[in-house]
Amino acid sequence: MIAGSGELAAQIVAAVEGLRPRQASFLRELVRTPSQTGDEGAAQAVVERWFREAGLEIQSWEPSPEELRPFAESVTLLPTYAGRPNVVGIERGAGEGRSLVLNAHIDTVEVGDRERWTREPLGGAIEGGQLYGRGACDMKGGTATNLFALLALRAAGLELEGDLIIQSTISEEDGGAGALSAVLRGQRADAAIITEPTRRAVVPAQGGALMFRITVDGLSAHACVRDEGVSAVEKWAVVHRGLAAFEARRNATIEDPLYASIANKVPLNVGTLRSGSWASSVPEWLVAEGRAGLVPGETLEGFKREFRAELAAIAETDPWLCDHPPAVEWLGGQFAPVGIDAVHPLVHSVVAAHASIDGAPPPVEAVTYGADMRHFALTGGMPCVMYGAGDVRLAHAPDEHLSLDELAAATATVALAAANWCGARVRTTEHRSR
Amino acid sequence: MIAGSGELAAQIVAAVEGLRPRQASFLRELVRTPSQTGDEGAAQAVVERWFREAGLEIQSWEPSPEELRPFAESVTLLPTYAGRPNVVGIERGAGEGRSLVLNAHIDTVEVGDRERWTREPLGGAIEGGQLYGRGACDMKGGTATNLFALLALRAAGLELEGDLIIQSTISEEDGGAGALSAVLRGQRADAAIITEPTRRAVVPAQGGALMFRITVDGLSAHACVRDEGVSAVEKWAVVHRGLAAFEARRNATIEDPLYASIANKVPLNVGTLRSGSWASSVPEWLVAEGRAGLVPGETLEGFKREFRAELAAIAETDPWLCDHPPAVEWLGGQFAPVGIDAVHPLVHSVVAAHASIDGAPPPVEAVTYGADMRHFALTGGMPCVMYGAGDVRLAHAPDEHLSLDELAAATATVALAAANWCGARVRTTEHRSR
Repeated sequence: MIAGSGELAAQIVAAVEGLRPRQASFLRELVRTPSQTGDEGAAQAVVERWFREAGLEIQSWEPSPEELRPFAESVTLLPTYAGRPNVVGIERGAGEGRSLVLNAHIDTVEVGDRERWTREPLGGAIEGGQLYGRGACDMKGGTATNLFALLALRAAGLELEGDLIIQSTISEEDGGAGALSAVLRGQRADAAIITEPTRRAVVPAQGGALMFRITVDGLSAHACVRDEGVSAVEKWAVVHRGLAAFEARRNATIEDPLYASIANKVPLNVGTLRSGSWASSVPEWLVAEGRAGLVPGETLEGFKREFRAELAAIAETDPWLCDHPPAVEWLGGQFAPVGIDAVHPLVHSVVAAHASIDGAPPPVEAVTYGADMRHFALTGGMPCVMYGAGDVRLAHAPDEHLSLDELAAATATVALAAANWCGARVRTTEHRSR
Repeated sequence: MIAGSGELAAQIVAAVEGLRPRQASFLRELVRTPSQTGDEGAAQAVVERWFREAGLEIQSWEPSPEELRPFAESVTLLPTYAGRPNVVGIERGAGEGRSLVLNAHIDTVEVGDRERWTREPLGGAIEGGQLYGRGACDMKGGTATNLFALLALRAAGLELEGDLIIQSTISEEDGGAGALSAVLRGQRADAAIITEPTRRAVVPAQGGALMFRITVDGLSAHACVRDEGVSAVEKWAVVHRGLAAFEARRNATIEDPLYASIANKVPLNVGTLRSGSWASSVPEWLVAEGRAGLVPGETLEGFKREFRAELAAIAETDPWLCDHPPAVEWLGGQFAPVGIDAVHPLVHSVVAAHASIDGAPPPVEAVTYGADMRHFALTGGMPCVMYGAGDVRLAHAPDEHLSLDELAAATATVALAAANWCGARVRTTEHRSR
């Protein structure tokens, strides 16, 4: 028999506390090993070494372009993923419990402008209880959560009834080739938790995202007779106003309670503008690229139709645009929105675990960004939530960092949620870990 | 005694008619010799050969950076102008008449997108009475006008009382280093005519131009939480609206009759926009470059103050811009506006000559573009008008071309205007032309 919920939580918290130095050491080693998307090999070798030392059954493979090809719009399809393996460590269940995937992606975005960092971007410095560095919260902290949740269960003298599948996948930042490959190769479980930095909110729904490119034509003329031309910058202003109104209208229609605390539920961001070649010519071209957010219930194809219709309606308000309608293209890395049933038992397992650790339940809410959840839930048909330490607002920014206290709390929560989901028993034999 | 005005005009028109094949041959050779700004040497060699064959006294020199340095904001100051000489041919006056500069610049803008040309850009093809090619109207046609105006006077049996100084100068398209150097080296006369393509309007006033760069700051954030950032593209919209209102207000204040036919007298053109680095980030920077038009009576420094004040006033309408005011810089090639007395005798000489050739006076009007006129009038203190064949709207465009009929008419007008301005007498000796 295992302890009651309160006692179990206390045991796990104590186990996590005891593991904190090793967990910080693991996270620091990961942060110090660069793994920008496309270059994950060295960091995966670190992960594999730790997984092996934990005695996990290792599965490691490079995704193949062939298996991903039917999903070319969803992930960044490359001719090869050589040197970029997924690494998975499996703890086989002692009984017949439900299986659980704990997923984290190993790739990070680029360091960016080093001048804006006050700490070494790949240094892993620990100051004031925070570990600094690119990937600290997005999401090497998630990898550390997943491995040490298992180690904490063991340290608390427990073993799981169902399989625990700890995945370190590649290429999330450009679409999720790694996670998708895992799903396609049959790494399915009864549920999945992705330990993305949700500030320890339970996230059963995530927004989708489509990257668009809008092209607006003008008519060139010398600046001195500019009224004989048509400025693509001025016509863009018409389009931009229309898109802002479109975003506002879309927001007004969303009543999902998971989105209640999010002011802009479907952000439509214009991220880049390029227009014109000469200061002294009327600009005859403009290219805008951006990202449109979608909510669960919408489909990528449906939104594309809606967006095109909106652009056409905007064009009709302007004689020039009516005759020269803006063109739209869709760029790579398309993220379908995804949401699971908000009262799914998986949600309750994590909520209850969090409440046992913290004394109060966590927020349950949607996020407006896309991540690998769609591959698990939509393609893999697995219930999936995101739950993890760290703040996504720090994720791609200078001085990215993660609170080690929050990491410990998330680790304990995930351990307890796994025990709840998979079932757990007091271990009777010494573990085979080396 | 020379013939009366009507008879003289007829003689000159006849002389120009007889010279048309040679004039077309000269223009075609010039068009076929590339002379994009910076690479004028080969075309100037052609000009010098024709000037020598016409028996003109040759002056040729490369502008020196030292002489131009005090005007560094007005022209494009380079470390050297080696291989880029001005070429001047002088016909000394037979008497004590007023001297006259006939100026044309030899440099052209780039060919641009060859795909958009239906004729060979440097081919000089003649079709339907039009000579096609880069520089045909802007302004190798002006060089042909100037030389053949003199040759027509000679062919009509006339010689001028005052000196005629025919200049082929470099580097007009990037500010006018060549014309300025001529002025600074004392090539001053009692008047100057620049045979820019004015569609044979007499232009005693030209707009100035300042090239500006505006930088707008935003605050980056991930697109999924875009409201936590500040979009430089959205803040630009505020600035852009303000600039459009500024242009409208400026236009409303101008009552100069020379501008009566020009709807936009002070065009404020935004020519290029660059903003943002990622589709999925809120853009934190935007750079706009453009050209502001000025009218005679305004000074560059005065307008700069006005523009800065306007930007500051626009910023005050927006809390973010108020705290993060847009910055403005001024780019090279600053063109001061310039206008001479609209009833100056030089204006009347050209108007009368045109009327004698055409039977009706030409339009007398301002133009909104800047050219070398400011160097002659402001720095050189010389009365100066522009008058020439061709349409500036074709000047920098694909399929630039010039009507050979219009070229002949302009040539006859300039010849007659020179005779009027400098005085002319029937030649008594054979000319020394080789």
